[in-house]
Amino acid sequence: MLTLLFAAPNWSDYEGPLTRSLAQAGIAARFAGDDTDPAEVDYIIYAPGSPLQDFTPFTRAKAVLSLWAGVERIVGNATLTQPLCRMVDQGLAEGMVEWVTGHVLRHHLGLDAQLAAQDGVWRPELTPPLARDRQVTVLGLGELGAACAQALAQLNFAVTGWSRSPKSLPGITCVSGAEGLRQALSTAGILVTLLPNTPDTSNLLNAETLALLPRGAVILNPGRGTLIDDDALLAALDSGQVGQATLDVFRTEPLPAGHPYWAHPRVTVTPHIAAATRPGSAAAVVVENIRRGEAGLPFLYLVDRTRGY
Amino acid sequence: MLTLLFAAPNWSDYEGPLTRSLAQAGIAARFAGDDTDPAEVDYIIYAPGSPLQDFTPFTRAKAVLSLWAGVERIVGNATLTQPLCRMVDQGLAEGMVEWVTGHVLRHHLGLDAQLAAQDGVWRPELTPPLARDRQVTVLGLGELGAACAQALAQLNFAVTGWSRSPKSLPGITCVSGAEGLRQALSTAGILVTLLPNTPDTSNLLNAETLALLPRGAVILNPGRGTLIDDDALLAALDSGQVGQATLDVFRTEPLPAGHPYWAHPRVTVTPHIAAATRPGSAAAVVVENIRRGEAGLPFLYLVDRTRGY
Repeated sequence: MLTLLFAAPNWSDYEGPLTRSLAQAGIAARFAGDDTDPAEVDYIIYAPGSPLQDFTPFTRAKAVLSLWAGVERIVGNATLTQPLCRMVDQGLAEGMVEWVTGHVLRHHLGLDAQLAAQDGVWRPELTPPLARDRQVTVLGLGELGAACAQALAQLNFAVTGWSRSPKSLPGITCVSGAEGLRQALSTAGILVTLLPNTPDTSNLLNAETLALLPRGAVILNPGRGTLIDDDALLAALDSGQVGQATLDVFRTEPLPAGHPYWAHPRVTVTPHIAAATRPGSAAAVVVENIRRGEAGLPFLYLVDRTRGY
Repeated sequence: MLTLLFAAPNWSDYEGPLTRSLAQAGIAARFAGDDTDPAEVDYIIYAPGSPLQDFTPFTRAKAVLSLWAGVERIVGNATLTQPLCRMVDQGLAEGMVEWVTGHVLRHHLGLDAQLAAQDGVWRPELTPPLARDRQVTVLGLGELGAACAQALAQLNFAVTGWSRSPKSLPGITCVSGAEGLRQALSTAGILVTLLPNTPDTSNLLNAETLALLPRGAVILNPGRGTLIDDDALLAALDSGQVGQATLDVFRTEPLPAGHPYWAHPRVTVTPHIAAATRPGSAAAVVVENIRRGEAGLPFLYLVDRTRGY
């Protein structure tokens, strides 16, 4: 009988899915209560928002299984010495692909202008160009970035993908490194940022890199708020260097009501909805990692502490 | 030396592309002028909007090659006895797929609500469901309908496709006939109408068929204005039976400024932009049919007069 600690805010969403997934996997487990000795816990299911910050007493825990794809809020926790696994939820990836393709098509087709043109005037000049003539760059080719780049390529967009180390994806122009980044930015009619939050990616979009974009480029950030120097983006929006930005993630969330992004006419704020984890599919991933831990198999989605993701 | 008549309004858009395509195909041809004898014309390149309505004097013409996908405005012309070919332009199909996927994702993701929610209030409840849980029905599985159904299925939507006669497409639940139509309508969270304009499809969406939809369904019509009984749709929008309609085609175009669609809060009008023919790719299709005619090969996209398309 395993002992599992659910250290995340939303137990009511997860109790049913976790119980069902454990039963399907034939794993006998109980969930720790307030009186459970930390030294008895076998696995910790974790999300930021939990009060648990000191992992030292969990001497027996074989892994910390994150319910979030991003682990930047715990990867630097010195007390966390157990293996740490990210969430790679199929539902999360699907939701991300849908948010990205929806907002890329919105900007590509000029949907905002179409929606605004309801005044009785027939405007065939609203006809958009074809996707094959639209250059889209995706920064980051991890699970989510690669899935988005491929969905956009299937919709016929001319897609460039950039990653730190070289990658190869069918139908995508893949570039890497510092020179690759310059190339990827210089052709980006629409730019999608899907990089993890690491010291290397902090403020990757700043005054200097934003200046490399074609004038009037559109930025979509469903990745991490830290990727963008907010003051530099606001200046680039005001100058017209950046035409529009649709932002789903921010340095502070919820985005404070007084933040200039809310009122900016060229900015669309969405409330961190691009990659919502769905409890049903996420529970299955957590349970699969428990099964692997018990069977002595390598964990899925193990975080590399030196890279930070 | 062939004689070609360009009987369409936009010669300046087509002169270059047609000349280049003819040269590439090695076809020697001249374009008829005002003083050319109709009996000398070998092929007529045609679009509605041309004053040409009497095809009787064109005794030598081997085919009428339409620049439009829809031929309903000439198929009933009794003087048109020559073979008539529709336009099937790859660029047109691409543009249609982009308009349809963009507007389906717009409704699926709730983009209108996202764009409206810029007042500083953080609303995670805007998180949409996944496409796999969204039922989309496409009426019509011709070249355009099939391409749209497949693009939507690749984006993970649960797609049902209806056609008059049985068809089979990978990843699509294909139904046909009268009973199939009832089934396809009853599950359609989002309905896309891509049928040709024929006596059978006129007013296909009427009070009776609109009542079969799930309450609050969304209708996208990039097909033909005649598919919809406008009064019935307006009544269904007012009652809430239809949640929203995005319409690109109308019985009268341009849609008159006073038409109730313009002002209706649940209707989005787009100005017949879903399937704009692109001269470059369309010219290549026209020239390929001229080449086939001269080589004694069957024409591409020949219209079946009994079906009307």
